[in-house]
Amino acid sequence: MTRPISFLSDFGYGDEFVGVVHGVLARIAPESRVIDVTHGVAAGDVRGGALALMRAIQYLPPGVALAVVDPGVGTSRRAIVAETPWGHFVGPDNGLLSPAVAMVGGAGRVVTIDNPDVRIPSEGATFEGRDRFAPAAGLLAAGEASLDDLGPEVDAGSLTPMLLPLAEVEADTVRGEAWWIDHFGNVEINVSPEQLAQIGVEPGDDVVLQVGAAQHRLRWAGSYGEVEPGEPLVHVDSYGLMAVAVRAGRADERFNLAPRTAVGFSRA
Amino acid sequence: MTRPISFLSDFGYGDEFVGVVHGVLARIAPESRVIDVTHGVAAGDVRGGALALMRAIQYLPPGVALAVVDPGVGTSRRAIVAETPWGHFVGPDNGLLSPAVAMVGGAGRVVTIDNPDVRIPSEGATFEGRDRFAPAAGLLAAGEASLDDLGPEVDAGSLTPMLLPLAEVEADTVRGEAWWIDHFGNVEINVSPEQLAQIGVEPGDDVVLQVGAAQHRLRWAGSYGEVEPGEPLVHVDSYGLMAVAVRAGRADERFNLAPRTAVGFSRA
Amino acid sequence: MTRPISFLSDFGYGDEFVGVVHGVLARIAPESRVIDVTHGVAAGDVRGGALALMRAIQYLPPGVALAVVDPGVGTSRRAIVAETPWGHFVGPDNGLLSPAVAMVGGAGRVVTIDNPDVRIPSEGATFEGRDRFAPAAGLLAAGEASLDDLGPEVDAGSLTPMLLPLAEVEADTVRGEAWWIDHFGNVEINVSPEQLAQIGVEPGDDVVLQVGAAQHRLRWAGSYGEVEPGEPLVHVDSYGLMAVAVRAGRADERFNLAPRTAVGFSRA
Repeated sequence: MTRPISFLSDFGYGDEFVGVVHGVLARIAPESRVIDVTHGVAAGDVRGGALALMRAIQYLPPGVALAVVDPGVGTSRRAIVAETPWGHFVGPDNGLLSPAVAMVGGAGRVVTIDNPDVRIPSEGATFEGRDRFAPAAGLLAAGEASLDDLGPEVDAGSLTPMLLPLAEVEADTVRGEAWWIDHFGNVEINVSPEQLAQIGVEPGDDVVLQVGAAQHRLRWAGSYGEVEPGEPLVHVDSYGLMAVAVRAGRADERFNLAPRTAVGFSRA
Repeated sequence: MTRPISFLSDFGYGDEFVGVVHGVLARIAPESRVIDVTHGVAAGDVRGGALALMRAIQYLPPGVALAVVDPGVGTSRRAIVAETPWGHFVGPDNGLLSPAVAMVGGAGRVVTIDNPDVRIPSEGATFEGRDRFAPAAGLLAAGEASLDDLGPEVDAGSLTPMLLPLAEVEADTVRGEAWWIDHFGNVEINVSPEQLAQIGVEPGDDVVLQVGAAQHRLRWAGSYGEVEPGEPLVHVDSYGLMAVAVRAGRADERFNLAPRTAVGFSRA
Repeated sequence: MTRPISFLSDFGYGDEFVGVVHGVLARIAPESRVIDVTHGVAAGDVRGGALALMRAIQYLPPGVALAVVDPGVGTSRRAIVAETPWGHFVGPDNGLLSPAVAMVGGAGRVVTIDNPDVRIPSEGATFEGRDRFAPAAGLLAAGEASLDDLGPEVDAGSLTPMLLPLAEVEADTVRGEAWWIDHFGNVEINVSPEQLAQIGVEPGDDVVLQVGAAQHRLRWAGSYGEVEPGEPLVHVDSYGLMAVAVRAGRADERFNLAPRTAVGFSRA
């Protein structure tokens, strides 16, 4: 049984890190397709990587997810595999995997990758993506190893969580924060359409966006086409959350928004 | 019949957009090879994407071309598939596909991707690369759908053209513009060697490059090796158009050239 | 016999260069897996590309290595294939291939790619990655050509070497230079642990790093976890060389290090 491998990291594109991991995977699992989810996660940004993997997971072919955003490499953080209804998640136990694992139904079993036979011998201990995570992912994808071959089972409930702030609904305001600025300057906010409904805001209404002391009146549009080029809008984005956008423009620059910026939505 | 898919976009490499589209393709067409033409087209630059696809198409394996540079997502622009002698082109009907379609012989049939069964259900309507174009491309590549399964046929002549300016030959000058600045700073101009011949300039001659009020005398060389490192040249580039280059240097910086900058060539 | 192709270049990700080469490979060798080692080598940086290929090669699946960092395209530099115990190396003869070829056991036979039938006809002569190297790599990977089909054999000893400076051990100091700044700001130095042992420095010791007139006292740690976040260290990196790093920080910025910066290590 050969399964595809979906690979996400913060390795960037300037070095050969991504290619070397592909090489290790190709040697161990020559028949497995490898999908690069992205390697553009900001260096060491575990939360950004976790959110990207969570958004992507339902679109990736079931199999093995290999995710490496690992600022704690060379510390005592665990290297794990989580078994889920979607397939296996391989990576550091620092919260990176948890939102995606939860989204696909949670981890039934978890092991730590501590079997020394799985590891590629190396002098330094700083490239576990190559030496430890890739071999584990490749062996699982190729059907050459079971979970038990990789290391001892640990409590599935001991997976390190990713603490994601939730939006709060007050009397007439929903308070949340920016979760993601995409390539086009669109800003995803951790606020759902249902939360806006709780303060009486519906699609088609105007809404007030608060960023610090600034207030901006925006239309909740169904699509970009409902506003003029250069005009801002709020809308339900392709993952079901509220997003701030500017048609043919960048909302992050217009409204001074960055990941983790606190925002409020209230009735206009 | 499984065919390869060639995928071009302006999604960039920082987000998971490209990986998610790969995931959708892998689920629908698990046997199809996917070639990333580039995802570095400038955000929303339909003309830049169209030129890149036009340059690439003759080197890509016949099959399905999936191209998404789509600043009009969420407006009334059509989502189309064009059938050509090369294969199928899938993308927004905004001019992006037209130069490549013309280069391989034109569209015999065109449909709009309006069959709701092709679409991946999603709350927002902003990621049609994932929800509409990728399923159409995957179904075609896997041989799971014919053109008629995707939506109604429309007039093949109704494909939105990409209006590309042509160079003009005056008495002693060819007036054109920069079409492409590549990674190395080489500048492709929309002027052919035949047009330079019309004003009496031949390979090996010197030529005067005009950029605004500035004039620069350059040699029309057969290859970089004919000039010294640091020296400029004009030459026929790898796509058969005239290009301005600097051996071991950047012509865009040397001559202050950007995409769409007007230039003239005249006899020295 | 179909073999994988590992592809490295300085083409960057903004243009369609990488995709076009993939297209040529897919047409000639449709069954061959293609691994992108990296295309982020700095434009024209032959030494940087050679070091990246050397670091990667032992992890890549044996087959064909296609490497194109070719500032001398269009000059008289040769286009070659080197046959080694690992497989075939295809690229310009400018030193790019030599360190990796040496690492896998050296070249048994070398040919120049001068058979005109191998070349894709093209008006310009500036994209040999597409027109000359990719066809040669594809034909070899697909088993459609032998070395002798590509061009005449040349002296295997005539391969252009990459002159890499070696560190020197003086009485109490090892003098070397930075070879590689990675995506995370870690700095690999061309100094081995054995050379530090020659001046009496052992793992766990403190060491003095000299950069110009500045001196910095650092600990030789076994892993990042042995120092506090924000603290620097020297350690054996994942390729067996000494590296300067900062836990959760950038060593290049902290110590003003760039590729080729001269450094010294001495006893604290």
